Amino acid sequence: MLNNTFALKGTFCYSKDPQNLIVRENAYLICKNGISEGIYDELPACFQGIPVIDHENKLIIPGLTDLHLHAPQYTFRGTGMDLELLDWLDTSAFPEEARYADLDYAQKAYQIFTEDLKRSPTTRACIFATLHPEATLLLMEQLENTGLKTMVGKVNMDRNAPSYLKEQDAVASATATRQWISDAADRHFENTFPILTPRFVPSCSDELLGFLSEIQQEFHLPVQSHLSENPGEIRWVKELCPDSLFYGDAYDRFNLFGKDQCPTIMAHCVYSTEEEIALIKKQGVYIAHCPQSNTNLSSGIAPAARYLREGLHIGLGTDISGGFSLSMLRAIADAIQVSKLRWRLIDPSLKALTLPEAFYMATIGGGSFFGKTGSFEKGYELDAVVLDDSSLPSPRPLPPLTRLERLIYLSDDRNIIQKFVCGNPIFSNTEDR
Amino acid sequence: MLNNTFALKGTFCYSKDPQNLIVRENAYLICKNGISEGIYDELPACFQGIPVIDHENKLIIPGLTDLHLHAPQYTFRGTGMDLELLDWLDTSAFPEEARYADLDYAQKAYQIFTEDLKRSPTTRACIFATLHPEATLLLMEQLENTGLKTMVGKVNMDRNAPSYLKEQDAVASATATRQWISDAADRHFENTFPILTPRFVPSCSDELLGFLSEIQQEFHLPVQSHLSENPGEIRWVKELCPDSLFYGDAYDRFNLFGKDQCPTIMAHCVYSTEEEIALIKKQGVYIAHCPQSNTNLSSGIAPAARYLREGLHIGLGTDISGGFSLSMLRAIADAIQVSKLRWRLIDPSLKALTLPEAFYMATIGGGSFFGKTGSFEKGYELDAVVLDDSSLPSPRPLPPLTRLERLIYLSDDRNIIQKFVCGNPIFSNTEDR
Repeated sequence: MLNNTFALKGTFCYSKDPQNLIVRENAYLICKNGISEGIYDELPACFQGIPVIDHENKLIIPGLTDLHLHAPQYTFRGTGMDLELLDWLDTSAFPEEARYADLDYAQKAYQIFTEDLKRSPTTRACIFATLHPEATLLLMEQLENTGLKTMVGKVNMDRNAPSYLKEQDAVASATATRQWISDAADRHFENTFPILTPRFVPSCSDELLGFLSEIQQEFHLPVQSHLSENPGEIRWVKELCPDSLFYGDAYDRFNLFGKDQCPTIMAHCVYSTEEEIALIKKQGVYIAHCPQSNTNLSSGIAPAARYLREGLHIGLGTDISGGFSLSMLRAIADAIQVSKLRWRLIDPSLKALTLPEAFYMATIGGGSFFGKTGSFEKGYELDAVVLDDSSLPSPRPLPPLTRLERLIYLSDDRNIIQKFVCGNPIFSNTEDR
Repeated sequence: MLNNTFALKGTFCYSKDPQNLIVRENAYLICKNGISEGIYDELPACFQGIPVIDHENKLIIPGLTDLHLHAPQYTFRGTGMDLELLDWLDTSAFPEEARYADLDYAQKAYQIFTEDLKRSPTTRACIFATLHPEATLLLMEQLENTGLKTMVGKVNMDRNAPSYLKEQDAVASATATRQWISDAADRHFENTFPILTPRFVPSCSDELLGFLSEIQQEFHLPVQSHLSENPGEIRWVKELCPDSLFYGDAYDRFNLFGKDQCPTIMAHCVYSTEEEIALIKKQGVYIAHCPQSNTNLSSGIAPAARYLREGLHIGLGTDISGGFSLSMLRAIADAIQVSKLRWRLIDPSLKALTLPEAFYMATIGGGSFFGKTGSFEKGYELDAVVLDDSSLPSPRPLPPLTRLERLIYLSDDRNIIQKFVCGNPIFSNTEDR
């Protein structure tokens, strides 16, 4: 399919910028070698005769990018939700992640995750695995086969973790990471790539962060981690790193905090100080805003609207399984919802996120971490999700943006009937389910 | 079926009290004339030979009561969500409700609502219609046929509403209400009953509230309305009723605020003052806590955990379509989620709702407005929802309460495979869908 030219027909909704959602009704989106050639009301003469996939009456949106989630935690999403972050890690996350030392378990558990991700509205994702290199490679293989574009991290953690889920020391962690990078390279994956993944500052000694910095510079890998999520966590980081000026500084002093040479995603940023925000902006760090997780783990509400409006890089994450829902459409709704509560309860000067703003974050906002993705404008890699809202009956016809809003609030996997990544069909709902 | 005795077999979860969820694995619930005879590990000798509906491996919970929703607003749920309460009423709710003057439209739109309610986990509901008596009767007929137990209100509104959705004056509103009550009585409904429904204080003149008080005392009808939802609304009520001590007092001075003779539901109570809370408690007013709506309309977060722990009557409402989801299982999750944010952002002295507490509110909490419903203990009317979680695969077996928690966070209509109200089967998922 990659070298093919074809057209998608339907009603397209995509972001021009954070304030404006574009609608093109009953139009043609041309795909050439996986790249958008733009949207046309009629098929241009030079494209007459190309195959047309007709999704008339359906809405078609750019693929959504999930900037932050933990694949091994998918098994227990929606359980143990009465706990706060640090207790939840000890009670739910760590014991479950330890199971992935067993490759049979990992195979079975990751298969459930990858199948559901394939059917979700997500086309790209940045994913935490566990500290186990073999299970991480297994996850990467499964993801490779979905056709989705993903970055996957073998997690590093050499301190402040239970003995059953901790690497022996910084050297062992770094060695395993190098081996994992080498093994991943040997597989010649086309869709899935390694991303360095120090779990978070409390789990990583300075020595380990130093090694990871060397590895980052050697292999030019991107980085993902957690930042300023929960008050208890932040106090802990302050104790652990008395010399750091703020939480993010503890990554930055090891050159693991953005800049051109080190594309970085930091999840949460609920309590980032002004200094931290300034450094995030200056060094182009991506913020993964995870509203559902921040709610479930009683963390708080990040000022996502401020970040977006001040021009920081920000996308959305489901944070499985601090968040229980894998749907990035729901993440859009969640982001809007919590921003309203933040406006009402904390800061009336920061207006709630609008639908176009939250949609932008889920498409171009996070998508740009992968390059030119998240839009249908000419030159973008063509990721698309075809949405069928016929299961949401209405006694009167609704305009496209109203239909899109309803799908954002009310859709489930049944509404997602086809998905494309770089022009390749990932699945069709008429097929194999 | 009503005069039958039968058993349901499965794994039962129900509340003993707000702190304790009972689990009975692979047990038998006996139903006799629509009433629970209790749960047994083995079928007792005296019941040998009765029909057994075998839902082995399924979870069975009491039917859920939706204490507050607007049926005519179901058509636009999940749309227009970027507005606050009073603007949203003017822009979304009022124009749509006006359409129900047209009985063809009402028939079509209400059919969508009643079909979905039938398939939802709700077995009982207190519902606002519109001000139109004919359309309200039509809704009642449709609901009657579902077999669900419902209370339905023709809405009263004689001021501060657009001319296209306002009754001529208090006399006209009262006259229409009496006629509607009489017409409803003539239909001899067995499942659906009228409930007096002054929209809210801003929509009802003192004269109208006076007439409704007379009607209430004459027909001994219950009452439902809105209370202390949004700061803008509360300021407005203060202007409209300068003599009222607080918002609730504006209902109470017309004897439309609880006490034995006047069972009353007040939706929201986000900003109730200490005086108002004291009167709610003293007069046994039911609070319909609507977490999703209070979020969507940027209203705030009600101190639901306080109300419950202080022994006030409190249940949950979806508040369609301030809330967009009809699922009372989602309402349970929403209630827990916002209570966590309230704890973190407003009041660390009020611990978040636990799963057992929120489950209690959705079952016995709201159900008790209908009498002895919401539990499987002997003597309760037997409303039950059968949940199939096989669409949520797990790589390892999960205990029943963990399965229940997952269903609360992750289920949709596909997980609801059968439902009973007073022992009558409402639908079976193997059937007609």
